[in-house]
Amino acid sequence: MKDSSEYLKKRAFYDSLLTIYGRKPVLEALEDPSLPVHKLHLASSNRRDQLISRMEALAEERQVEIAHWDRKGLSRISKNSRQDQGVALDLALPHYGTCEAFLRQYKNNSEKKPFELLALDGITNPQNLGMIIRSACAGGMDGIILPRKGCAQIDPLVIKASTGALFKTPILRCETLAKSLADFREAGARVCGLSSHAAMTLAEVSGEMPTIFVLGNETRGVSDTVAEQCNELLRIPMHNDVESLNVAVTAALISFRRQL
Amino acid sequence: MKDSSEYLKKRAFYDSLLTIYGRKPVLEALEDPSLPVHKLHLASSNRRDQLISRMEALAEERQVEIAHWDRKGLSRISKNSRQDQGVALDLALPHYGTCEAFLRQYKNNSEKKPFELLALDGITNPQNLGMIIRSACAGGMDGIILPRKGCAQIDPLVIKASTGALFKTPILRCETLAKSLADFREAGARVCGLSSHAAMTLAEVSGEMPTIFVLGNETRGVSDTVAEQCNELLRIPMHNDVESLNVAVTAALISFRRQL
Repeated sequence: MKDSSEYLKKRAFYDSLLTIYGRKPVLEALEDPSLPVHKLHLASSNRRDQLISRMEALAEERQVEIAHWDRKGLSRISKNSRQDQGVALDLALPHYGTCEAFLRQYKNNSEKKPFELLALDGITNPQNLGMIIRSACAGGMDGIILPRKGCAQIDPLVIKASTGALFKTPILRCETLAKSLADFREAGARVCGLSSHAAMTLAEVSGEMPTIFVLGNETRGVSDTVAEQCNELLRIPMHNDVESLNVAVTAALISFRRQL
Repeated sequence: MKDSSEYLKKRAFYDSLLTIYGRKPVLEALEDPSLPVHKLHLASSNRRDQLISRMEALAEERQVEIAHWDRKGLSRISKNSRQDQGVALDLALPHYGTCEAFLRQYKNNSEKKPFELLALDGITNPQNLGMIIRSACAGGMDGIILPRKGCAQIDPLVIKASTGALFKTPILRCETLAKSLADFREAGARVCGLSSHAAMTLAEVSGEMPTIFVLGNETRGVSDTVAEQCNELLRIPMHNDVESLNVAVTAALISFRRQL
């Protein structure tokens, strides 16, 4: 039998790649020395203007590989041909991975220390996403589940709002959140959706089992298909008839709740 | 001796007035039926264009008094002749007052239940100010000290970000924060400044005495003159070498710390 460790190592590396696209985001990322840039992708159809030349020069300076593709090849990499403007960039984030890999590792680990994750269901504001990452990281959460669709994606604005925390927090990607939450439940995790109308409160959640806290959209809350996967709905008790908190504030209260 | 109760009632009413200015903010406030509008002020030098006509029509519709002033008179009301664009609007907020009035009431109250306030030292981002008000209100803080200078002031953007909480939270105005904190200390309150470099942590603060938590500027933190008035400096312990939290998140962690 062939040794699969080399293959798995490679796969883990590719799982850690975050691809951003669009001329301004890519240029800004290349200009930021703190970002671990892996590879620059350019469509051969690009007109060689000043911006493209600047990207090439920066990539050379940073010894970053440049790959050239036809238009179709590039859109396969950016996964967004409408907005990529012919450029994409891979960032190699050390803690960027998938729900699958996280669960695999958890199952293989004999210790089974209960983890706590945040899961984002339709968080669309990049500023909020960045603040959530920053608070979850500072509060010591074990990771953030970020579905590929329906949420703000990690772009330079989010990286900025996270003030560096993005590079220290496991970001677990998945295709659809409901499916992924089902996998986590199967592995023994409890899934708690935050909802201002819930009967149970956050303080009633014990810390003995692996738990995922689901944060819903800024105005609509947790979606129906995701709510179906929740074992519990929770609220944070509020004074003065305030109905809801900013979602990044909610993330912080969850993350810090045992340390205040 | 003349009865001063009528005078004091009037003074309390005038203390509760928040004056906003500028054509767009004033128009937006007039268009928002949830805002308790008291009086519209117009400079007689204004050209009668569509915007001014619209404001007058809205004020009439809402039965709001309109006062006309010469340019100088109007700038005395707006306190910002550069940006008022010839219009100002008084909002009558039920919980808008002064540090002086708050302290007077505390001293006259025989019960002396320990209060908890947030004090803002150079918070310049209106979005943050709105989120701080929302979190403090939901967390049950007794009020927010907002100096007239050096902080974002309450404008329609802040009102929006506070999602209505502004009308339920005592906002205590003062001229300079350091002076006001000295008055609070004299009355027996403890003043705690938040600082990421402090030795003491938030969890070590007991709830037995009236306490003011001072939140500093988004990048520079608490200013030197204000730090001099602090009995203690506090930090919120953080994981993963994160250096600081968003100031609105910090406000939320303080406000909710006993309820999670």
